[in-house]
Amino acid sequence: MEIEIKFRVNFEEIKRKIESLDAEFVREELQEDAYFYIPCPKQLRVRKISNLNEAFLTYKEIKDPGRNEEFDEIEIGVSDPDKVMEILRRLGFKEDVIVRKRRLVYRLEGVTFELNNVEGLGSFLDIEVISDDVKIAKEKIWNVANALGLSREDVEPRLYQELLKEKKTT
Amino acid sequence: MEIEIKFRVNFEEIKRKIESLDAEFVREELQEDAYFYIPCPKQLRVRKISNLNEAFLTYKEIKDPGRNEEFDEIEIGVSDPDKVMEILRRLGFKEDVIVRKRRLVYRLEGVTFELNNVEGLGSFLDIEVISDDVKIAKEKIWNVANALGLSREDVEPRLYQELLKEKKTT
Repeated sequence: MEIEIKFRVNFEEIKRKIESLDAEFVREELQEDAYFYIPCPKQLRVRKISNLNEAFLTYKEIKDPGRNEEFDEIEIGVSDPDKVMEILRRLGFKEDVIVRKRRLVYRLEGVTFELNNVEGLGSFLDIEVISDDVKIAKEKIWNVANALGLSREDVEPRLYQELLKEKKTT
Repeated sequence: MEIEIKFRVNFEEIKRKIESLDAEFVREELQEDAYFYIPCPKQLRVRKISNLNEAFLTYKEIKDPGRNEEFDEIEIGVSDPDKVMEILRRLGFKEDVIVRKRRLVYRLEGVTFELNNVEGLGSFLDIEVISDDVKIAKEKIWNVANALGLSREDVEPRLYQELLKEKKTT
């Protein structure tokens, strides 16, 4: 299970703090995520990482809808994102939202930091732990979140695709 | 478009004939094809090639159902066949037939020979040409088929999955 908490952050400030924790820089990703309509709590996504020439097909089930911190995820690498999208269209799936972001990935003792600048939305830090023990995973996440000066008020429970849709309708 | 005609053959005899035409041997594949139920003329398949450690997700539309010689095909390489199958199941697709075969692939002047020994069904030769001109493609296929001593009576129009289902019910 993927346990993840998302915080609204100032990109440069939190980047300095993560680096000062001695987290290992893993990589930078320029992501374009195409979400297809399927009923909540399921999610279906094709991710292109243009700078690394990689692509993934991802299926997720949100285990705590509304809070959106616990995900059952299945992800595979694919040779051609455009062809996967065409297969999904031919199978009857319709495209929903596109989320574009620049992501810096860091890692520290089993915790992954995904520092995102999301087009149209601003900057967010996803702190992620892979574990079947939700309680321990969340403790780990909150320990590092507190070390970065983040608190409950900084949490953004909504998904990026929800935030983009809300923005369009306001 | 993929234009392909399937013939019932004697494996060793036709292998010698293909090699005597100076066709280039491309590779041997041990394939396990999992088909998922979707309405004809569509087809959805996950192929594992165990000896080469490769896997593909393939969507096809049969353009001449019943005859089954013309296919609109979209295929992508995938990093993990079991995970793709799990994603398809979670999206609501049900597994149908599994087709297992040993395949030798040869190529000669734009024509691909796929010599198959199919578990439970025997040996078949698929002669394939990729082209948007069906007429020219079929002429090419019949030229080499005739050179191999194959005729109309050797053609097997049914799909492997149809043959396997018919076998089960008799």
